Amino acid sequence: MSPAVVDAVVSPSNNLSLLSRAEVGRLLDASRGDLHALFRRCSLAVLSTGSDIDDGRALLARYPDFDIRIVPQERGLQLELKSAPAQAFVDGRIIQGIREHLFSVLRDIVYVAEEIVDHPSFDMGSCEGVTDAVFHILRNANVLRATTRPRLIVCWGGHSISREEYDYSKLVGYEMGLRGLDVGTGCGPGAMKGPMKGATIGHAKQRIGDGQYVGISEPGIIAAEAPNPIVNALVILPDIEKRLEAFVRMAHGIVVFPGGVGTAEEILYLLGILLHPDNKGMPYPLVFTGPASARDYFALIDAFVAATLGDEARRHYRIIVDDPAEVAREMHNGAQQVADFRRRRDDAYYFNWLLKIDRDFQHPFVPSHENMAALDLHRDQPPHLLAANLRRAFSGIVAGNVKADGIRAVEERGPFEISGDAAIMARLDELLAAFAAKRRMKLPGSDYVPCYRIVR
Amino acid sequence: MSPAVVDAVVSPSNNLSLLSRAEVGRLLDASRGDLHALFRRCSLAVLSTGSDIDDGRALLARYPDFDIRIVPQERGLQLELKSAPAQAFVDGRIIQGIREHLFSVLRDIVYVAEEIVDHPSFDMGSCEGVTDAVFHILRNANVLRATTRPRLIVCWGGHSISREEYDYSKLVGYEMGLRGLDVGTGCGPGAMKGPMKGATIGHAKQRIGDGQYVGISEPGIIAAEAPNPIVNALVILPDIEKRLEAFVRMAHGIVVFPGGVGTAEEILYLLGILLHPDNKGMPYPLVFTGPASARDYFALIDAFVAATLGDEARRHYRIIVDDPAEVAREMHNGAQQVADFRRRRDDAYYFNWLLKIDRDFQHPFVPSHENMAALDLHRDQPPHLLAANLRRAFSGIVAGNVKADGIRAVEERGPFEISGDAAIMARLDELLAAFAAKRRMKLPGSDYVPCYRIVR
Amino acid sequence: MSPAVVDAVVSPSNNLSLLSRAEVGRLLDASRGDLHALFRRCSLAVLSTGSDIDDGRALLARYPDFDIRIVPQERGLQLELKSAPAQAFVDGRIIQGIREHLFSVLRDIVYVAEEIVDHPSFDMGSCEGVTDAVFHILRNANVLRATTRPRLIVCWGGHSISREEYDYSKLVGYEMGLRGLDVGTGCGPGAMKGPMKGATIGHAKQRIGDGQYVGISEPGIIAAEAPNPIVNALVILPDIEKRLEAFVRMAHGIVVFPGGVGTAEEILYLLGILLHPDNKGMPYPLVFTGPASARDYFALIDAFVAATLGDEARRHYRIIVDDPAEVAREMHNGAQQVADFRRRRDDAYYFNWLLKIDRDFQHPFVPSHENMAALDLHRDQPPHLLAANLRRAFSGIVAGNVKADGIRAVEERGPFEISGDAAIMARLDELLAAFAAKRRMKLPGSDYVPCYRIVR
Amino acid sequence: MSPAVVDAVVSPSNNLSLLSRAEVGRLLDASRGDLHALFRRCSLAVLSTGSDIDDGRALLARYPDFDIRIVPQERGLQLELKSAPAQAFVDGRIIQGIREHLFSVLRDIVYVAEEIVDHPSFDMGSCEGVTDAVFHILRNANVLRATTRPRLIVCWGGHSISREEYDYSKLVGYEMGLRGLDVGTGCGPGAMKGPMKGATIGHAKQRIGDGQYVGISEPGIIAAEAPNPIVNALVILPDIEKRLEAFVRMAHGIVVFPGGVGTAEEILYLLGILLHPDNKGMPYPLVFTGPASARDYFALIDAFVAATLGDEARRHYRIIVDDPAEVAREMHNGAQQVADFRRRRDDAYYFNWLLKIDRDFQHPFVPSHENMAALDLHRDQPPHLLAANLRRAFSGIVAGNVKADGIRAVEERGPFEISGDAAIMARLDELLAAFAAKRRMKLPGSDYVPCYRIVR
Repeated sequence: MSPAVVDAVVSPSNNLSLLSRAEVGRLLDASRGDLHALFRRCSLAVLSTGSDIDDGRALLARYPDFDIRIVPQERGLQLELKSAPAQAFVDGRIIQGIREHLFSVLRDIVYVAEEIVDHPSFDMGSCEGVTDAVFHILRNANVLRATTRPRLIVCWGGHSISREEYDYSKLVGYEMGLRGLDVGTGCGPGAMKGPMKGATIGHAKQRIGDGQYVGISEPGIIAAEAPNPIVNALVILPDIEKRLEAFVRMAHGIVVFPGGVGTAEEILYLLGILLHPDNKGMPYPLVFTGPASARDYFALIDAFVAATLGDEARRHYRIIVDDPAEVAREMHNGAQQVADFRRRRDDAYYFNWLLKIDRDFQHPFVPSHENMAALDLHRDQPPHLLAANLRRAFSGIVAGNVKADGIRAVEERGPFEISGDAAIMARLDELLAAFAAKRRMKLPGSDYVPCYRIVR
Repeated sequence: MSPAVVDAVVSPSNNLSLLSRAEVGRLLDASRGDLHALFRRCSLAVLSTGSDIDDGRALLARYPDFDIRIVPQERGLQLELKSAPAQAFVDGRIIQGIREHLFSVLRDIVYVAEEIVDHPSFDMGSCEGVTDAVFHILRNANVLRATTRPRLIVCWGGHSISREEYDYSKLVGYEMGLRGLDVGTGCGPGAMKGPMKGATIGHAKQRIGDGQYVGISEPGIIAAEAPNPIVNALVILPDIEKRLEAFVRMAHGIVVFPGGVGTAEEILYLLGILLHPDNKGMPYPLVFTGPASARDYFALIDAFVAATLGDEARRHYRIIVDDPAEVAREMHNGAQQVADFRRRRDDAYYFNWLLKIDRDFQHPFVPSHENMAALDLHRDQPPHLLAANLRRAFSGIVAGNVKADGIRAVEERGPFEISGDAAIMARLDELLAAFAAKRRMKLPGSDYVPCYRIVR
Repeated sequence: MSPAVVDAVVSPSNNLSLLSRAEVGRLLDASRGDLHALFRRCSLAVLSTGSDIDDGRALLARYPDFDIRIVPQERGLQLELKSAPAQAFVDGRIIQGIREHLFSVLRDIVYVAEEIVDHPSFDMGSCEGVTDAVFHILRNANVLRATTRPRLIVCWGGHSISREEYDYSKLVGYEMGLRGLDVGTGCGPGAMKGPMKGATIGHAKQRIGDGQYVGISEPGIIAAEAPNPIVNALVILPDIEKRLEAFVRMAHGIVVFPGGVGTAEEILYLLGILLHPDNKGMPYPLVFTGPASARDYFALIDAFVAATLGDEARRHYRIIVDDPAEVAREMHNGAQQVADFRRRRDDAYYFNWLLKIDRDFQHPFVPSHENMAALDLHRDQPPHLLAANLRRAFSGIVAGNVKADGIRAVEERGPFEISGDAAIMARLDELLAAFAAKRRMKLPGSDYVPCYRIVR
Repeated sequence: MSPAVVDAVVSPSNNLSLLSRAEVGRLLDASRGDLHALFRRCSLAVLSTGSDIDDGRALLARYPDFDIRIVPQERGLQLELKSAPAQAFVDGRIIQGIREHLFSVLRDIVYVAEEIVDHPSFDMGSCEGVTDAVFHILRNANVLRATTRPRLIVCWGGHSISREEYDYSKLVGYEMGLRGLDVGTGCGPGAMKGPMKGATIGHAKQRIGDGQYVGISEPGIIAAEAPNPIVNALVILPDIEKRLEAFVRMAHGIVVFPGGVGTAEEILYLLGILLHPDNKGMPYPLVFTGPASARDYFALIDAFVAATLGDEARRHYRIIVDDPAEVAREMHNGAQQVADFRRRRDDAYYFNWLLKIDRDFQHPFVPSHENMAALDLHRDQPPHLLAANLRRAFSGIVAGNVKADGIRAVEERGPFEISGDAAIMARLDELLAAFAAKRRMKLPGSDYVPCYRIVR
C-alpha cells in the first residue's frame, strides 16, 4: 500500500525569513543543481520523523514522487512540497517543529554550503579555519546562547537500544531536566530521543520554559536518525568530523549510554582529544551510564580503553551503573566546574574555544577500502594519536553499516579489511563481536552481516 | 523500611505571595484548628505524587511524622514541612511544580474555606450562589483565561485502567495537543495523566509555550489522585458537586475514556444537565472513546443510557473507537462551534454561565446508608431527574470504594442498599458486575469486594 | 463653542474582565444609585486628562450631557459613554491608557465601595482594619509588585508650579529613571506630571521596559488632578487619609518639590508619622528639592518645622537645591538601605507593614467650620500630635481652595477660623502669606482669596 | 575648563556578543589601522549625545585624550574607553542605550567595512549589488522586522529649527505614536529628535511596548547629529547615498518637516525616484508639514518643484499646515495602502524591493569643486534625472556647510560654483537665499557664510 502523501507550500519560520534577492537567487541555483539530491533526501528524513525506517534509500523508495523546491518571491522564498509524507501534517497543516526543521535543512544544506563552507574566507586547511567554520554554522543556526550559564549536556549512545536502556535514558534525561540541565543529542531514536523526552517532563515539572533541546546532525546520518520534533534547535554540520567538533565544543558535559560502533567512535574521539597534552587540566565532565544490564557493556569498553589507550585515559570518565540521579548530579556539579574554569580563563560559556582539537580529529575520514586498510593501529604512537586512528576504524564501520555510500562500497567490494597490533586487534574483535552478539549493530529486525574483516 | 523524608521551609510562589497581616492571622488560626487535619492530608497527597499508594489512610500511615504548619512573617508567610516525602525534592530543593501545588492546597483548603465558602456574601442555598462560589474559587485560583479562544478539553475516565487504555489516552492527548487544545482532568494517574503527558509532547512539537494543564480536584479524592507536577493550574473545589460544576462550566468539550463507577457518575451527571430543557440547543462536544478493546465497554454504557434515559440522551454524545486523531478533530471543531455560540450569546469563553445546572446536581450528596436507600430510581420522572438520582447512586459507590468516610461507613454497617425499577436495577447490576469483572473498580493489586447491594 | 464629544462602548482591559454575574449585578445597582454621581464625575475627570480645567464643577458644566453607565453582559460588562470628551479618543477609538483608567475608576469607586469599604470583614474603627483596607485596595488594583526590589519613589509637590520648577521636576524624574527608580505621584499636572515624563525618558534610555508610573488619587481631587495616561498603575483611595497612607506605605523614598498648602499638608503628615516613637530607627529617605529659585521656599518650610516641631524633626529630611542627580543618588542609596532594613526585619518590599501610623493620621478629617475652629494648635503636646493637627489645618485649607464641598462651605459661611499658640499662628500666617504671594495657592489665572482666617 | 571624563571597559550588548576568534582578530586589525580614526570619531559622537556641539572637529578638540580600543578575549571582545565624556555615564556606569549605540558603531564602521562593503560577494558596481549591500547592513543591524505590519514612518527635516517647529514635530510624532506608528529619522536634534520623543509618549499612552525608534546615520554626519539614546535601532550606512536608500526602502511613509539644504536634498532625492517610470502606480505616502509659520517655507519648496520638475512631481506629496492629527491619519491610511500593495505584489513589508532606484541616485557624489561645477542643471532631460542632479547640488552644499571634508575644501579653495538654466538657477538662488535668511543653514549661534556661488 502506498503511504499517504500531501502537497503543500510552506513559509519560513526562522532566520531564513529575511533573505536578500541575491541570496534567494543563489539558493535557487544551488538547490536545482548538485545539492538538490542531498536537499531532497534530508528534507524527506525530517518529514518522515517517527517512521520506523532508518535507511535513507528505503525511505526514498517509499516516497518516490517526493520532491521539494524553492519558490522565490519578492519578499523571500517559500518551499513547495510534492507527495510529502502525510505524518508531518495535522489536518493539512505542517507541524510547527517539522516546519522549523525543514528550513533548518535548507539553511544548513544549501545556505551553509554556499555562504560558509565554500566561502574563500574560511581556510578549511587550518585547524583554526575549521573551528571557525563550525562556529559560524552554529551561530548561523542560532543554537549558541550568549547569556545562559553552562547547562548543555550532550548525550551519546545507540539509536538501536533495548526498551530497558531506552527507559533508563529517559530517566537520566528526566533527572537532568529536574536540575535545570538542557540536552543535546545526535537526533534520531533510542539514546538520542530518550533523554530529550525525559528532560521535557523534568523541565515541565520545574516550570522551566526555555529548555533547549539541541539536535546536531549530519547529511549522511539524518535519514537514519531523523530529528524528533521536540528538538527545538537543529543544526546539520557538513560532515561527521565537524559534527563531532560541534558536540564537544558546545557541551558542558557528556553522558554516554550503551550503543554500538557509532558510540565507540564517539568515545574514542573524545578521549583522543582529552588526552592531548594541551588539554591537561581542563574540566570536562564525562560519564558512561546504563541500567544494571549494561554493566558488562561498559566493563568491556573500559577494558578496551585500558588495553589500548592505557590507565591515564580511564581517569577522564566515570562509570555509573543504574543511578540516574547520580548521573544528573555529576553533570550538574561538573557544569559548575566548567563555568568556574571558563570564567577564570575568560572563555565563552557557549563555545569551548580553549579545547585543542588536532587536525587528526578534524580531517574528514573517507571510509574507502584503501583508507581502512591503511589505518595505523599500532601501540608505538602517543595515545591521542592511536585514539584518532581507532576512531577512524569505528567511523568506517558505521559507514559500512548505515550510510548509503559505505553500504554501497561494501556491497561492491566486500567487507573492509583492518589490521594492526595483535593485542589491539584481539580487543577490537572481541568488542565488535560483543556488539554484534548483543544486536547493537543495527535496528532490531535484521540480522547483522559484518562490514569489516580483521586481518592479523 | 521507612521511606526517606525531608524537613524544609518553603516560600510562596503564587498569588499567596501578597497577603495582608489579617489574612495571615486568619490562615494561621484556621490551619491550627479544624482544618489542620484536612490541610495536612491534602498536602501529603501533593507531596507524594508519583507514589503508587492511592489510599489516603495508607499514605498517612506511611508518613506518620509528616506535618505542615504556617510560619507567619511580617511580609506574608512560609510553610514549614516536617518529615515530608523525599521524592518531592531534588537535591534538597522542592520541585517547583510541587511547590505551586502545595500553595494551591493552602489557598483552596484554608483560604477558600475562610474567604469564600463560609463567607456570608455567598448564598449556598441558591443555584446562583453556588455557581458564584465556584466561579470565585476558579478565579481566585487564576485558572480562568480571559483572553484565550475556547480550547480546554476536559478528559474523564478511570485512574485504574489497562496499559493499553493508558497509552491510548496519551495518543488522544497528543493529537489534541497537536491541534492546540489544552487538557483538564481530575488529577491522578490513568486517564487523568495520559492525556496531559500526550498534550505536553504535542504542544512541544507545535512550539505552543502556553499550554494549560488544568487539574480539578477535591479534598476527598486528592489523596487517591494526587496531581502530577505537569499540572500547571491546580484547583481544589470543596466538594464533589462543585468539582463537577467546575468541570462542565470550564470545559469547551469533554472526552470520556473507559473508567469505573466514577466515570459512570460523571457521564450521568453531564447527561442529566444536557437533558435539561433549558440547555436545548447549546453545543457541548462530548465523545466517549477508547482503544478497540474498549468497544464493549462503551456498548454497555450506551445500552445503559438507552435503557434508563432513552434515545434522546444518546444524541448528546458520539462514540469513537480506536481513532485518536478523529477524537481530536471532533473536539477541535466542537470548540469552534462553542466559540461561535458564546460570541452570539455574549457569554464568556472562560466560563459557561448560560448552562443551566439544577439544584439536584449542585446539592452535595452525602452517601449515608439512609440516603443511598432512599434514592428514587424509577422511570416515572423526567430523564434529567432520573439521571440525577443515578448519578447519586454511582457517587455513593465511589465513596464506598475509595473515600475515607465511605470506606469506614461500609466497614461498620455493611454494603449500601439500592433499590428501584426492576429494569433499571437489572441494567445497573449488569453494568457494575461488568466493571468488577473487568477490574475497573480499584487499582490493580486488590480484589474487589462490592460496597453496595441491589435490593429488588 | 461646545466642545467635541463622542459616544462609545468600551470593554474592560484589566482585572474587571473576569466578573461574576453577582458582581456585575451589584455594580449595576450601586452605579445607578448613590455612587452614580461620584462615578460620573471621576470618569469625566479621567476622560478630560490634559484639559486645562482643574475644577470638577467647571468640568461637569462643560460636558453637561456626559453620562456613563454599566452594560451587563453574559460574559461580564461594558461601559457605555455618552457625550464624552473627544480628546480621550483617537479616530474614534479610546486611548488605551485612558481605557485602563476608566475601569480603574469603576473598580475603585464602585467595586471597592461594595467589596471592601462597606464590607463587614474590615474594621474601619481600628488602625489595623484601616491599614488592612488600604492594603486590599492596593492589591486589588494590582499595583503591588511582590518580586521587585525597592525602587518606588513618591514625588509630592504643587500642581500649580512655575515652568522652571516643572522643568526641574522633569530633570529629577529623568535622573531617577536613569538609575532604575520608579515614580509615584498624586496624579495631575505640575510636580506630579514632571517626574513621570522625565522617568519615562530615563527608562527608555536605559532600556527599562517595566517602569512603573503609579498614580494615587482620591475622589475629591481627581477632577482637579486627572491622571496623565502615562500613569500605568492608577488607584483611587476612598479618602485623603487612606491616600496618604497608601503613599507612605508603598514608597521607598519621598521627594518633595515646591508646592502650596497641599504639599505642606503632606510634609506635616509624614513628619508626624516619622516622629512617632515606634518608628525610631526606621530608614525613610526624604528629600525636599527645587531649582535655585526655590531655595527661599524650602528655607521657609524648614524654619516652620523648626519653630513648630523642633530640630529633631529636621533630621528626617535633607534639602537639596538645584542638583537633580544628587537627589536621585540620595533616593537610590536610600532605597538600598530600605531594602536592607526590610530584609533584616522580614518585612515586605512592596508594603511597609512595620510603619506605625496613629489613628490621628488615619481618621478622616472633615473640614467643617466647627472642626477647623476646634483644632488644637498648641505646643503643649508631643511633636507628632502637633504635626497631626497642623496637618489637619492644612487639609482644611486645601479643601476650601479646591474641593467642591470645601468651596461651597466657604462660599456659604465665610472663611474657616483657626487659632492656637501665638508663635505657631504667626509662623503659619507667614507661611500661608508667602504661598499666596508666590501664587502657590491656585492654578495660574485667578486671584487667590484666602479661605481661612487666623484668629489670635 | 576641561570637561569631565571617564575611563571604562564596556561589554557588548547586541549581536556582537557572539564573535569568532577570527572575527575578533580582523576587527582588532582594522580598528588599529585605517579605520581607527573614523571609529574613534563616531564613537565620540555617540558618547557626546546631548551635547550642543554639532561639529565633529570641535568635539575632537574638546576631548583630545579620548580613545577607544578593542580588547580581545577568549570569549569575544570588550571596548576600552579612555577620557570619554562623563555625560554618557550614570554614577560610573554607561547608559544602556549609549552602550548599544557604541557597539552599533563598532558593528557598522568596522565589521561592516570588513564583512560587507569590501567583500567580493557584493558587486558595488551594479544597482542590485548596492541594494543587496544596503539590505545586508540593515539585516545585520537587526533593524528589519519580519513579522510587523507596515508602520515605520521616516521623518526628515532640519536639525536646526525653531522651537515652534520643534514642538510641532513632537506633536506630529505624538499623534503618530497614538496611532501605533513607529518613527525613523536621521538621528540628531531638531526634526529628527522631536518626532521620536512625541512617539515615545504616544506609545506609552497606548501601552505599546515594542515601539521602534530607528536612527539611520552616516559616518560623515554622525558627529553633527549624534543619536539620542531613545533610538533603539541604530544603523550607520557607509555613505550618504546608501543612507538615503535605506530610508526609502525601509519607510512605509515619509513626513518632511521644515529644514535647510539637507532637507531639500532629501526631497529631491525622493521625488527623483518616485518620478522614475518604473515606480508609477506604487503607493508612497509623502507629506510636507509644519506649523502655520512654515506655510511660506513649503510654498517656496512647492514652487521650486513646480518650476524645475513640473506639476507631475507635485502629485506625489501633500502639504499639510498646522494639523498634526491629519498628518498622522494620512500616514496611517497610507501605510495601510502600502500593506495592501505589498501583499498583492508579494513584496516584503520590511524592505521595498520593488522600488526602482537608478544608478544616479546610488552612486556616491563626491562634492569636489570640479564635480559641483560639472553638474548638469538644465531642463532638457527627464525630470527624474534633473532631480538627481539637483539632489547632488544640495548634497554638495550640505557638505560645504557641515561635513569635515567639505568645510576644509571650501576653506582652501573658496565656495563651490554651480551653473545651469537661468530659470532654474534663479529659483535655486531664491530658495537658498530664503534658507539663509530664515537661518535654516546652521545651528543657531553662528552667522551663515555661503559655501557656494551661483554662476550664470
